[in-house]
Amino acid sequence: MSTPSSLESLIKALRCLPGIGPKSAQRMAYHLLQHDRSGASSLADALQHALGALRHCQRCNTFTEADICERCLSGKRDASLLCVVETPVDMNMMEQTHAYAGLYYVLIGRVSPLDGIGPRELQLDQLLARACDGVVQEVILATNFTNEGEVTAHYLAEMLRSRAIRVSRIARGVPVGGELEYVDAGTLAQAVRERRSLT
Amino acid sequence: MSTPSSLESLIKALRCLPGIGPKSAQRMAYHLLQHDRSGASSLADALQHALGALRHCQRCNTFTEADICERCLSGKRDASLLCVVETPVDMNMMEQTHAYAGLYYVLIGRVSPLDGIGPRELQLDQLLARACDGVVQEVILATNFTNEGEVTAHYLAEMLRSRAIRVSRIARGVPVGGELEYVDAGTLAQAVRERRSLT
Ligand SMILES: [Zn+2]
Ligand SMILES: [Zn+2]
Repeated sequence: MSTPSSLESLIKALRCLPGIGPKSAQRMAYHLLQHDRSGASSLADALQHALGALRHCQRCNTFTEADICERCLSGKRDASLLCVVETPVDMNMMEQTHAYAGLYYVLIGRVSPLDGIGPRELQLDQLLARACDGVVQEVILATNFTNEGEVTAHYLAEMLRSRAIRVSRIARGVPVGGELEYVDAGTLAQAVRERRSLT
Repeated sequence: MSTPSSLESLIKALRCLPGIGPKSAQRMAYHLLQHDRSGASSLADALQHALGALRHCQRCNTFTEADICERCLSGKRDASLLCVVETPVDMNMMEQTHAYAGLYYVLIGRVSPLDGIGPRELQLDQLLARACDGVVQEVILATNFTNEGEVTAHYLAEMLRSRAIRVSRIARGVPVGGELEYVDAGTLAQAVRERRSLT
């Protein structure tokens, strides 16, 4: 009287998606089978194709179909600026600001002692070699402002400064359009401490 | 400088999943590529296998790998009771109550004039033939207590009563406007026990 095994396998497989529990997985499986078989088939193809085609860029670590990504190969980017982010999604967010025209280095992770990820696990040799190549003039740290992101930024800053490389950190503060009433106290405290002189 | 096409295709394909917008799809794609390639590969396989293996049971319409599902073939179910539900998920919910030991008929849809689905589109001949086969003694209507589900139940009750078949409706223990999929098993069990005769 059980669910057919292929249906059970599909429900189980859908749980590899982040944020999808057993109930959502069941709903998704029935939805696909009942209402969107061509969508399900396209998804299977897209997964297989992406797994086969995508790898990490040898220079910046983002996903690319070539050995080195378009951005790293572009002559239009300012190669003297190197922005360090935690993930390819963060890199996309930076790009959407149109406020940065330099290059990137994606850490693919951050220092997280609780998860057993120390500086060594991040394999920073490649970043170090990059920062010291004589072309890069400034490394901009754009890791998250979480505990792990801050620890990572702190560690990277120490590491790079000891090699006399200029390092900066993106600013922290009240979001643009943000109202003080809705900003958490920690953020506001930080915004006060890091206030800029207007004179 | 754009996203690689295979990554873009994957993000787009993930949007066939119900409730997944562009932002979630992006997050899912990066998660799979970064942290769960084997899960992604299993998902692709499970999708393809399920699409190939699953079809509708010829008697009750639920998904099965055979022509007729295990439940319909089982000698342990009370064939004199036929429960009509809207979807296979609703059937699973009924089973989880352990309050019902009869057989099922899955409508795969409900009367929905706004979507252009009238009684004719539901192809009720099969249900009618089943209800009139001389074995079935009572048809229990377990469509949702939404407007469409109520209209469907009303229509089915009229249709079956005109053929002198005993019809009942699960009790309104299910919250008005609620959907079976999201009701706890205890409430649903009560609704089965307190079903009202519509004759
Ligand atoms: Zn690159
Ligand atoms: Zn069946």
